[in-house]
Amino acid sequence: MQNHYPPTLKKLIEALSELPGIGEKSASRLSLFLLSRPGLCEILGDLIKELPYRVKLCKYCRNLSEEEICGICQDETREKEKICIVENPVNLLHIEKTGIYRGYYYVLHYLLSPKEGFGPRELGLENFLKLIVERKIKEVILALSPTLSGEATSSYIAELLKAYPVTVSKLACGIPMGMEIQFADPLTLKKAFQGREVLKGG
Amino acid sequence: MQNHYPPTLKKLIEALSELPGIGEKSASRLSLFLLSRPGLCEILGDLIKELPYRVKLCKYCRNLSEEEICGICQDETREKEKICIVENPVNLLHIEKTGIYRGYYYVLHYLLSPKEGFGPRELGLENFLKLIVERKIKEVILALSPTLSGEATSSYIAELLKAYPVTVSKLACGIPMGMEIQFADPLTLKKAFQGREVLKGG
Repeated sequence: MQNHYPPTLKKLIEALSELPGIGEKSASRLSLFLLSRPGLCEILGDLIKELPYRVKLCKYCRNLSEEEICGICQDETREKEKICIVENPVNLLHIEKTGIYRGYYYVLHYLLSPKEGFGPRELGLENFLKLIVERKIKEVILALSPTLSGEATSSYIAELLKAYPVTVSKLACGIPMGMEIQFADPLTLKKAFQGREVLKGG
Repeated sequence: MQNHYPPTLKKLIEALSELPGIGEKSASRLSLFLLSRPGLCEILGDLIKELPYRVKLCKYCRNLSEEEICGICQDETREKEKICIVENPVNLLHIEKTGIYRGYYYVLHYLLSPKEGFGPRELGLENFLKLIVERKIKEVILALSPTLSGEATSSYIAELLKAYPVTVSKLACGIPMGMEIQFADPLTLKKAFQGREVLKGG
């Protein structure tokens, strides 16, 4: 495809192809587009180069931050005794957008996955356990996806927290709002039964 | 979506969203991926910044090149008396890959399109006409897409070349190889009839 492209263009196409979801064809298209936008090249090139130097992990919750302590951890209006464990910054934002939760967070960045070589050590929970003690946390909410590795990680953390005087909860599993029951998979339906909400005592 | 992202990340997402086919969601995903690959950030950032300074247009054919004269124009084994007019470097490569054509090229970069404000002036055909005389070109092959603007541009160039002692040809329109006739659109079928190839004289 790129046999006759100039070397810089070839290298750019190669580098762009390393990005997730971008194949050689998209990479070519993007490169040729960039060629027509020198102003954007200047801005984008600088931003990409600076990114790893500027954006770090918050000292406390490991959320992305350009300061030592992220905006959420600096926010003193938050409910101080709750910590919500999330897999990554995207999930954290997704929860923030709902406005349902006003406590602090802890970002794992990894889930347990023996296949990919992510064991308990990679989760790096030492700081998290320290936070629980120091901040006198009363509830840990596990907000990991109900997938194989999410569930494994939740169980592992719940087990670990048995030694601490905290409530540990996990997001409810059930039928998504708006979905017809006939389309819910059996496992979800089972979870929805197990977690059924009592509307009126008998 | 990105309310709680650090400023550099926000700006990067914004800049990436300007690329064709990349929405805010993909831009977020790409940015977070880049964050996990500082080595790639370094390489990619440099390449994007250098791109517009390194890659220019060939002095003769206006194909992309890092040298004043591109590889094809420097290739003396080519058929010297033919020039193929293409819309852009991608189409040029597409033709090169087939190996069917061994002459030179001229890249327009634009097609006539009054709507988008691309008139004859933007086509910049002065150099092309000079080349035709200087190189004693005998055939000009119009290899533009059979679209509205492609056809308009082909007609315009053919008209322009009436004053020059050159053969002007245009790529054949017809049913694509492997397509069943029932699926060919009426206009294509009409073109296929008009351009039918005589297999045996009567």
